[in-house]
Amino acid sequence: MVTIKQVAEYAGVSVATVSRTLNDSGYVGKESRRKVEEAIKVLGYYPNEVARSLYQKSSKMIGLLLPDISNPYFPLLAKGVEDYAQQNGYMVILGNVEDNADKEDMYVKFFSQYNISGVLSAASGKRKNNDRVPYVLLDRALEEENYSISTDDRLGGKLAGQAILESRGQNIIVMAGPRHVSGANDRLSGALSVLNAAGASYRVFETETFQVDRAEETAQRLFDTFKSFDSVIASNDVYALAVMKEAIKRKYRIPEDIQIIGYDDMLFSRLMYPGLTTIAQPAYEVGFKGAEMLVNLIEKKVIIDKKVKLKPELIRRDSLR
Amino acid sequence: MVTIKQVAEYAGVSVATVSRTLNDSGYVGKESRRKVEEAIKVLGYYPNEVARSLYQKSSKMIGLLLPDISNPYFPLLAKGVEDYAQQNGYMVILGNVEDNADKEDMYVKFFSQYNISGVLSAASGKRKNNDRVPYVLLDRALEEENYSISTDDRLGGKLAGQAILESRGQNIIVMAGPRHVSGANDRLSGALSVLNAAGASYRVFETETFQVDRAEETAQRLFDTFKSFDSVIASNDVYALAVMKEAIKRKYRIPEDIQIIGYDDMLFSRLMYPGLTTIAQPAYEVGFKGAEMLVNLIEKKVIIDKKVKLKPELIRRDSLR
Repeated sequence: MVTIKQVAEYAGVSVATVSRTLNDSGYVGKESRRKVEEAIKVLGYYPNEVARSLYQKSSKMIGLLLPDISNPYFPLLAKGVEDYAQQNGYMVILGNVEDNADKEDMYVKFFSQYNISGVLSAASGKRKNNDRVPYVLLDRALEEENYSISTDDRLGGKLAGQAILESRGQNIIVMAGPRHVSGANDRLSGALSVLNAAGASYRVFETETFQVDRAEETAQRLFDTFKSFDSVIASNDVYALAVMKEAIKRKYRIPEDIQIIGYDDMLFSRLMYPGLTTIAQPAYEVGFKGAEMLVNLIEKKVIIDKKVKLKPELIRRDSLR
Repeated sequence: MVTIKQVAEYAGVSVATVSRTLNDSGYVGKESRRKVEEAIKVLGYYPNEVARSLYQKSSKMIGLLLPDISNPYFPLLAKGVEDYAQQNGYMVILGNVEDNADKEDMYVKFFSQYNISGVLSAASGKRKNNDRVPYVLLDRALEEENYSISTDDRLGGKLAGQAILESRGQNIIVMAGPRHVSGANDRLSGALSVLNAAGASYRVFETETFQVDRAEETAQRLFDTFKSFDSVIASNDVYALAVMKEAIKRKYRIPEDIQIIGYDDMLFSRLMYPGLTTIAQPAYEVGFKGAEMLVNLIEKKVIIDKKVKLKPELIRRDSLR
């Protein structure tokens, strides 16, 4: 790597002059400035961020904690984070914490050791933010945290419940996501409020996790547990897909015998057949806006809307009657 | 953050004593050591990695360049990288470069500014590695690069061609992935070698990209371009899914009228119906072994097998006759 000393030597000026030119502070003669700029260009010099970060006690790095990168929702969210960060000169450090509090702690420690300038967390653990760095929650809002970008999950649950009722669901299974994920509780309560108001007949199927590698066994368990039903409100699109496959294996027709609604709107939900009716979550936007809020916090800008709630949307395809 | 000075104060010893204790160098009395260790525990002190990295000119961070994180193949690969890194005390910095050479250059510059200790690149750009940090290519091997973990794409192409022939493909479309991706060329040449040897009738459909947001228009173009065919060897599972959907929309039955084979073996390929017959790539393993090779390089261990080629595998499901 090119050093500031080499730049000074090439330009034939002092290190102090190069430094003043770089920082745009103090007097630098026109000719000296020209020489320094030329030397920087020719040698390909750029300042060492590590030295800068040590001096300023913060880096241009942000940490991103995700619960499960193999769930296709999170790469979309990560893409939003990364796009905003990249456009604004920040780098993203990835931490896949898998609903594991120890892993989350380890990353937070890592982040602190590297003077990371802020953290975006979509992890579902109950860990409180005791760090002094700016911190934005993604995908959920908590009373004790000041800043968050989330989707209105209660509204999402209501939309799913309404869609099922409108397509004449008689005997409905509502899959309840993990109880420690606040968004999952909000969806469930939104869906149940609509079903209760309509006096609909439903049962709640408890699932412990959103982890994708548990989708198939969960779908099998659903069919083994409940003998007759005609509608499923699934925890997310991956689980909806698994339920659909299990239904077809057991010779049910979709949507005639069993109708299914998902949650998320993944790429495959659009590309599969029958197309999955689902509640679209703005994953990319959650990531992008979250990164924007975090960078504004880091750069000490005023943030008016501290707890942003984005709206989910019903996407009609072919899996409801 | 707790400083070494605070540790010294709490322990009632000098900063030099704390430093000697931490580095296990020079003499430290038994009682002083006990006090320092207690202070470290009570205060929750850990050394600042930024300072260490500046001094040692390398960090415990590795950069990961991906061409498209919304393509579900890459999150799996990233998970493999992240798991190995995490188990070995390294952090992963994510760069989504989207087949864009400028973005790739920007990240490489970023990485250098942060004294990153090594780079894993699955980006498909033609950028040469001129950096002094250890560098491992993922997903492809190039003559001019010393270290790589890839899948034997030529074998993968052969397996796909053989499977189509065994299920009596008569009129075959082979989707050729982007020409600047060496793996895509290898798959194509593997498939064509098998089809040629059998004297099969086929046509090559050129596609410029693997980007997932182009899958639907590409599938439509395929059906508009070729009027009669009964088999498709798709570029990857996302494109196979798009072709399948377009086929069903145009009232073809799968696999009776048109049979399709994918490439990758994504989660949805297993969960969709009909299940997609595909060539499984060990995405997680590519990432995990790549990170292992990189960390071994960083830690100056001997690497015997510098260009590792993993084997792809035919996964039979229901999309072939």
